[in-house]
Amino acid sequence: MTVHYRPKGPSMPQADSHRWVQTVTLPPPSLADNSADANRLEAVLKQSLGVPTVAMDLDQLKSLPEQLREWHFRATAVVFKETAAKGVLIHLAPPDTTERLCGLAVDLGTTRVVLRIIDLVSGEHLAETVFDNPQTTVGPDVLTRIHHVETPGGLDRLHRLIIDGINAQVEGLCRRCAIGTGQIHLVSVAGNTAMTHLLLGLNPRWMIREPYIPVTNRPGVVRAAQPGLSVHPNARMLVFPNVGSYFGGDLIAGILHCDMDRREETAILVDVGTNAEVVLGNRHWMMACAGAAGPALEGGVTRMGTTAGPGVIDRIAIDPDTLAFDVRTIENQPPRGICGSGVIDLAAALFRSGMIDIRGKLIPERCGKRYSLQNGLAHLTVVPAGQSATGHDLGITQADLDSLIRSKAAMYTILETITGSVGMQQSELMTFFVAGTFGAYIDPVSAITIGMIPDLPIEYYRSLGNSSLGGATRVLQDPGCFDRIDAIRDSITYMELNVNQDFMNRFSAAKFLPHTDTARFPSVRVPSGRSTQ
Amino acid sequence: MTVHYRPKGPSMPQADSHRWVQTVTLPPPSLADNSADANRLEAVLKQSLGVPTVAMDLDQLKSLPEQLREWHFRATAVVFKETAAKGVLIHLAPPDTTERLCGLAVDLGTTRVVLRIIDLVSGEHLAETVFDNPQTTVGPDVLTRIHHVETPGGLDRLHRLIIDGINAQVEGLCRRCAIGTGQIHLVSVAGNTAMTHLLLGLNPRWMIREPYIPVTNRPGVVRAAQPGLSVHPNARMLVFPNVGSYFGGDLIAGILHCDMDRREETAILVDVGTNAEVVLGNRHWMMACAGAAGPALEGGVTRMGTTAGPGVIDRIAIDPDTLAFDVRTIENQPPRGICGSGVIDLAAALFRSGMIDIRGKLIPERCGKRYSLQNGLAHLTVVPAGQSATGHDLGITQADLDSLIRSKAAMYTILETITGSVGMQQSELMTFFVAGTFGAYIDPVSAITIGMIPDLPIEYYRSLGNSSLGGATRVLQDPGCFDRIDAIRDSITYMELNVNQDFMNRFSAAKFLPHTDTARFPSVRVPSGRSTQ
Repeated sequence: MTVHYRPKGPSMPQADSHRWVQTVTLPPPSLADNSADANRLEAVLKQSLGVPTVAMDLDQLKSLPEQLREWHFRATAVVFKETAAKGVLIHLAPPDTTERLCGLAVDLGTTRVVLRIIDLVSGEHLAETVFDNPQTTVGPDVLTRIHHVETPGGLDRLHRLIIDGINAQVEGLCRRCAIGTGQIHLVSVAGNTAMTHLLLGLNPRWMIREPYIPVTNRPGVVRAAQPGLSVHPNARMLVFPNVGSYFGGDLIAGILHCDMDRREETAILVDVGTNAEVVLGNRHWMMACAGAAGPALEGGVTRMGTTAGPGVIDRIAIDPDTLAFDVRTIENQPPRGICGSGVIDLAAALFRSGMIDIRGKLIPERCGKRYSLQNGLAHLTVVPAGQSATGHDLGITQADLDSLIRSKAAMYTILETITGSVGMQQSELMTFFVAGTFGAYIDPVSAITIGMIPDLPIEYYRSLGNSSLGGATRVLQDPGCFDRIDAIRDSITYMELNVNQDFMNRFSAAKFLPHTDTARFPSVRVPSGRSTQ
Repeated sequence: MTVHYRPKGPSMPQADSHRWVQTVTLPPPSLADNSADANRLEAVLKQSLGVPTVAMDLDQLKSLPEQLREWHFRATAVVFKETAAKGVLIHLAPPDTTERLCGLAVDLGTTRVVLRIIDLVSGEHLAETVFDNPQTTVGPDVLTRIHHVETPGGLDRLHRLIIDGINAQVEGLCRRCAIGTGQIHLVSVAGNTAMTHLLLGLNPRWMIREPYIPVTNRPGVVRAAQPGLSVHPNARMLVFPNVGSYFGGDLIAGILHCDMDRREETAILVDVGTNAEVVLGNRHWMMACAGAAGPALEGGVTRMGTTAGPGVIDRIAIDPDTLAFDVRTIENQPPRGICGSGVIDLAAALFRSGMIDIRGKLIPERCGKRYSLQNGLAHLTVVPAGQSATGHDLGITQADLDSLIRSKAAMYTILETITGSVGMQQSELMTFFVAGTFGAYIDPVSAITIGMIPDLPIEYYRSLGNSSLGGATRVLQDPGCFDRIDAIRDSITYMELNVNQDFMNRFSAAKFLPHTDTARFPSVRVPSGRSTQ
């Protein structure tokens, strides 16, 4: 669907301010008003962007006088900001242009990268694609990649991989939208601190050494061509700022996406990816912490189970009377694995049906024939070999369950710690945003049942989907978001998780289902006869 | 003379703020203070520059972490500003560097260009050179060059001529100071509006067509490499802003140079080059006008006589009794011409000795054998052929004198108009700055005698020398000057000279020596018997 850009009629100096593309109508020069061409244009753009300066390139100045006169002092301007106080002219087109003027939003994940093309005039999403981060060929996680940086040519290799990968995908995306890559004038990128460093060719090696220092907390706005993106030669790229090595721009984008920085009421945002990252706050203040610190989260939640995909079990229910398993797979394909949300569902169902105790230990007599010992380790079969797509038994071991218990306890303890740090009870929270795939797939009732998240009314939980991409998209649609990004970053107080005795006590108390203090989980019915030891 | 840069000892975050080169000492990172390397450096630079942002290039960020650690979180930083609200890091060197860090100040005249190399640490002038603007080969004046722009390749030719000319001269200058051109990190250029446009490759064609619109009033700060200067690849170039097509950055630099924008008391600044430009004001307001408008200044003051140089007569006195001429030549060489200041001296002396009347007409009986008619035109011999270096008679014609009278009348009328526009009498002025070669060579007593400038006490007149170069130099020496430049530009009210009946009446009254109203010139003794007709 093509959206034709309809400029406004000729009236006094004006520009739309709700988009980065603006139709400008300049007062024509006269003896009484003989300011220079560039300053005439700048005056209108300054006003609409609310900045004291709007910069233009020398090359733009070279063509400006003839363009303005040919177009009778009207034009379509693609603008952006370099800082809160400095706008920049990206591109000037005739006032009645029908050329599509586009932006590219990037969710730069460690595992997967999502690209989205935006029409800068309508704000419409034109196309989207997901692909594996090509750096995965070097290493699956942040740490491996940072170690690779220290090998000869390693930094350049990782940098080229992601740049070439994005360029190739952008080309395909542009073909799908019938635009040229030169029609992409703005790029915004949200990613964790290590990934954005590698995108820019910056060495992240000091991020993994105490005291964990990134090269920059605010990559800011650069020319997209500088790190090598093949888009409009004058395009600018905004890279979301980070709060530190363990709290990246993806989270800042998430906060922007859910408007936490504008809400009067305190909300919490949880993003469980490789690490669990948590932000608590409102328009006045924000506290954040990341669960990478401390041994408690070793393993992480997403290490449990398989990556979501066709045939992967994402929902499990157990009939409490018959103990029959009801499994749902993605796209209803024959089961071939269990993903994170499936594991949480499974644990909740096992607990409700009395097949695991409050410590998460399998109870052989209750599990019946699904229980076995494999290499001396307790094992529970979810899908027998005969019914699975792989021909192997699909199940869960006691070690998997123990790991889940540690993870959920860590998550709960982090939530308890961060709310406690501002003197709040978790029960006082009215809005609980859950970001990312975790948020999209998890069943809050199951997560509450195992005591991973607080026992709030289900409607308080709000899944944000890909909030990193959402935030990256919003800043391309709405100039009003630009200044909020740095303001969000600056309003965050990052709390280093201090894994002290107090934390460990809370962590130990949370290592039961749902918790040693069952009063905190009134909605969870603890199976009779099996309350706290 | 080599000035070694002596960084301060290690203490808490600090930077000098009185130079663009700063020794910075950063607090080393710790778990309690884990902001990124770039932001750690930026924090110190932001404070010293008093700006909310200091930008760094991606390439600088790439080497920053290793540099900071190698240098123990101390460094020598060359900084500059891009706008009042945005600093920029140009270059980072070890804290104890002995490398010279330099700037280049440029007075970009239509006729002559002056370059000066500055040591950015000491502020010292290292070397200076003057050369003819190479664009003179295309045309001697602004108008010819602008017409040339409209021929095929004309703009590029003029742009290359000045860029190549500066590059060649800079190379020679750098050799003289024993530095490389890459050691020039900052450039500042003051010139008239047309010359700065040509330097940047901007087309000045609309400047000479009503309503006289330049491409830009504020070229601002660009990378010096962008228009083609061969200096440090990351060097920035500040081009002084203009107020319009006829009031250029050279005048803004002049105002900066003499601190008119900081003085409580009202002063006037007169720059007589190709045009006469006048600024009247103080720290609260400034009025300006340029004498290019109107037919009165046709010819101009500097068209009179020869360009100053060895053998050129710059001072003339006439003994009132013997009528003997006493001529002084530059460098005491045999006389070969008369420069502008010589012509003014001559006219004043002729008037005092009664050899011209109050209309400036030669009086044959008083001139004696120096008087002759050449091709029907009255002529006065100053140096007979036998005594001149050229073998020709050196003198002045009635037409030259008539032209001088028109010029001096125009100058006086402009001064009267601009002071009158703010309700001031010329006699109220306490400081009268005279810029440029005109200011450097002219004898104020002579100029007062012919009624070109008001009859103020001689000590009120202050010759500024090359104030355009002076202003360009100051901004390289003192970061405090940067913001003043735009502030000066914005505080100027440009007054179009309205050559109406009132102006013409005042002009006619000023076409006598010293003026029809002799009461305005009490210090000038009007020769007896020859008062106003």
